[in-house]
Amino acid sequence: MTKQQLVEQIRKKRSFLCIGLDVDLEKIPKYLLHFDDPIFEFNKQIIDATHHLTVAYKPNIAFYEAYGINGWQSLEKTINYLNQNFPEVFTIADAKRGDIGNTSTRYAKAFFEDLNFDSITVAPYMGRDSVEPFLEFQDKFAIMLALTSNIGGLDFQTLEFKKTPLYETVLKKSLTWKNSKNLMFVIGATRPEYFKTIRKIVPDHFLLVPGIGAQGGNLQDVCKFGLNKQVGLLINSSRGIIYASNEKDFAQKAQNKALELQLEMQEILIK
Amino acid sequence: MTKQQLVEQIRKKRSFLCIGLDVDLEKIPKYLLHFDDPIFEFNKQIIDATHHLTVAYKPNIAFYEAYGINGWQSLEKTINYLNQNFPEVFTIADAKRGDIGNTSTRYAKAFFEDLNFDSITVAPYMGRDSVEPFLEFQDKFAIMLALTSNIGGLDFQTLEFKKTPLYETVLKKSLTWKNSKNLMFVIGATRPEYFKTIRKIVPDHFLLVPGIGAQGGNLQDVCKFGLNKQVGLLINSSRGIIYASNEKDFAQKAQNKALELQLEMQEILIK
Repeated sequence: MTKQQLVEQIRKKRSFLCIGLDVDLEKIPKYLLHFDDPIFEFNKQIIDATHHLTVAYKPNIAFYEAYGINGWQSLEKTINYLNQNFPEVFTIADAKRGDIGNTSTRYAKAFFEDLNFDSITVAPYMGRDSVEPFLEFQDKFAIMLALTSNIGGLDFQTLEFKKTPLYETVLKKSLTWKNSKNLMFVIGATRPEYFKTIRKIVPDHFLLVPGIGAQGGNLQDVCKFGLNKQVGLLINSSRGIIYASNEKDFAQKAQNKALELQLEMQEILIK
Repeated sequence: MTKQQLVEQIRKKRSFLCIGLDVDLEKIPKYLLHFDDPIFEFNKQIIDATHHLTVAYKPNIAFYEAYGINGWQSLEKTINYLNQNFPEVFTIADAKRGDIGNTSTRYAKAFFEDLNFDSITVAPYMGRDSVEPFLEFQDKFAIMLALTSNIGGLDFQTLEFKKTPLYETVLKKSLTWKNSKNLMFVIGATRPEYFKTIRKIVPDHFLLVPGIGAQGGNLQDVCKFGLNKQVGLLINSSRGIIYASNEKDFAQKAQNKALELQLEMQEILIK
């Protein structure tokens, strides 16, 4: 998918919501466990109920790897279902991968070509040659961790190097990498005060923002400084939407929660 | 496996070699492609030919993920084969994982419990709560990236914060984390000059050292400052051993290469 197509989808749906598909067999409705593939069945019902309200889905790969081969089958079925039925939706493999050059190329091919995701999250610690392999694919995006929403995000990311915090250096340096237009960045919603500076460094790139809801981040605060001319934000919500209910009405309840966020976003976009 | 068991194995085999099982279907002998599971068959033959010369095997997970469900099956078969036949060997899932708390727990369970690896490589960028979940498992180890062997390793890891390079801060801070005795660290062989300082910070921890051979690192240089009283080093070689030949004699040639390194290590250990 091109960036332009993503922006058009946002304008059309009046939403910049991303729904995290972090499926845990202990949290989904019990009756789904009788299906051949409970994870896929759960995802399918969530997708069917919410696709008109969201512009992106983000399965966190850990939740699928945790179930071994069965988990990978559920992941394959989920991404295939999305690509076949809702090709307009942007898909994110939340994998946080990063390795030396030829190994990163392996990961890139697995997620971009074999599974046909539009994007993958990557980690910056190993530097340029661990991320550039992900940037070589046309109309595919590497979403690099910059400032994360967890407490440990402050352990190293905000350390100052010549008065510049590490995450700013990560942002700046990455702009010099080959095909840096194919980058997006992960910026946690729990640190809204940083968005002003971040937008000075990366005015045009999309930011994937986790941490709204359960982790305490606030949509209005993030949008105040995070929005750009092309919207430029994907706000992720996982548990708050997909586990709104663990009864048979879970998909309907998930839709209600997604709708609440979409309406809030619509209001912000019209302003 | 306990650290003590690893050390005993090193003493017994007079080796601190780790063999990287980075299997690429384009590089293995063509005749293996006729087997039901060429990757497992390749690994099995490499393991059978080298297990007496090496103390650890390290499959890089990217190479398996690249083949989707088939790749995961090959990985499962490989780790099961190792655990059933050579339980004395230390196993490393080279996955470089790291995510927020509950997600890291997912990865930890997948690799430590379901696949029963002894250790997994992890990335430090997201800080304490992304790594601590891996340290909660008894007799299991998280091997954290500190100073990597690739060129991009110099992009961020050596940036100085208050005159201390980032990788040193990463090492120091990680020692304050819960169960830090279950940590090991990745230090590239291409930076031998750093080992002296590193050993001052982490005198007792094991270091996993990639970058010998193909990437230009030198065993003698690394050992000069890297060895500690319990040896404390695992020297990884992947391509240099497993792709020594791509003919039918590949396992024998791999054995020869492993033997060369083992003899060099034996000499260093006896000194």
